[in-house]
Amino acid sequence: MGRVVIHATMSLDGYIAGPNDDLNWMSDYVGPNKVADEVIGMAGAIVGGGRFFRLIEKRLEQNLPYGGAVKAPVFVLTHHPRGTIIKTGVTFHFITDGFESAVKQAKAAAGDKNVMLFGASVAQMGLRTGLADEIQLHLAPVLLGGGIQLFGQPGTGHIKLERMQVVESPKVTDLRFRIVR
Amino acid sequence: MGRVVIHATMSLDGYIAGPNDDLNWMSDYVGPNKVADEVIGMAGAIVGGGRFFRLIEKRLEQNLPYGGAVKAPVFVLTHHPRGTIIKTGVTFHFITDGFESAVKQAKAAAGDKNVMLFGASVAQMGLRTGLADEIQLHLAPVLLGGGIQLFGQPGTGHIKLERMQVVESPKVTDLRFRIVR
Repeated sequence: MGRVVIHATMSLDGYIAGPNDDLNWMSDYVGPNKVADEVIGMAGAIVGGGRFFRLIEKRLEQNLPYGGAVKAPVFVLTHHPRGTIIKTGVTFHFITDGFESAVKQAKAAAGDKNVMLFGASVAQMGLRTGLADEIQLHLAPVLLGGGIQLFGQPGTGHIKLERMQVVESPKVTDLRFRIVR
Repeated sequence: MGRVVIHATMSLDGYIAGPNDDLNWMSDYVGPNKVADEVIGMAGAIVGGGRFFRLIEKRLEQNLPYGGAVKAPVFVLTHHPRGTIIKTGVTFHFITDGFESAVKQAKAAAGDKNVMLFGASVAQMGLRTGLADEIQLHLAPVLLGGGIQLFGQPGTGHIKLERMQVVESPKVTDLRFRIVR
């Protein structure tokens, strides 16, 4: 049975996007990373929020999740019904009946592989609902000073974690935690 | 010449105090920690904000910085002039002419040892003024979901860091970064 994994590259001050939704900051922190390769190899489906999709939508071929290296289906949580689209072999389903439904459908699609939660809103829903099992972060040595925080918004409550793995990759520090129920 | 070091125990979601200024959460993450011992051994003076002081003031003997293990003087940045006080061998000076003055006086007191910046407001001043040299974090495996973030407030801008040390201590992950100017 696959797990539900919050997966993000995050600055030391907790941001996954800089001011004005900037994602370009991340390019400095992409490089050889065995942990990321393993995590991506286990990705069987992706759940992303509407904001995540709007950010990547404009140049979808260039901005596919995991650079298009994973052909796993993407379940986009949205309020706007829309037909399934396929870009360079990656299928995007648009889910309008809520996060738990999106995770359920993603789990069915992922089989024994993992469901990856993308973006702050979906990550926080994973924490609030108790559906997230793990957190896999690539911690970038930078302070962005503003933007969108992965965990920042209050409301998820006090959640204990268990450290599972720490790896010093060349450009980031990979941290993996299990969420303790 | 000593360095100016932002030093904190921080949750994975970036908080140093929980909701309602709660500091009790930290007690779960205190334990044998060689990195902390080394850092504390190099502490020659402490600069803290008024909020930090108000939080510890009520039970000062119990709440001394570093549990009273360090007798380094504490320079409290405040708007309220107040005479120097001494508690269990620790001297508290109250500085009303600004952060840079507090750091200057702390550096003079610390000599070859380091000046430690305590609390979110002072840490952020250290970043904004460029006076902070390093960041030493004890990253606790917990999400607090609210409270006071060490770096969260926008305004410090994009600051590159260089990873210097990662240590898996029993209860926390110790991360040390140099601030790249």
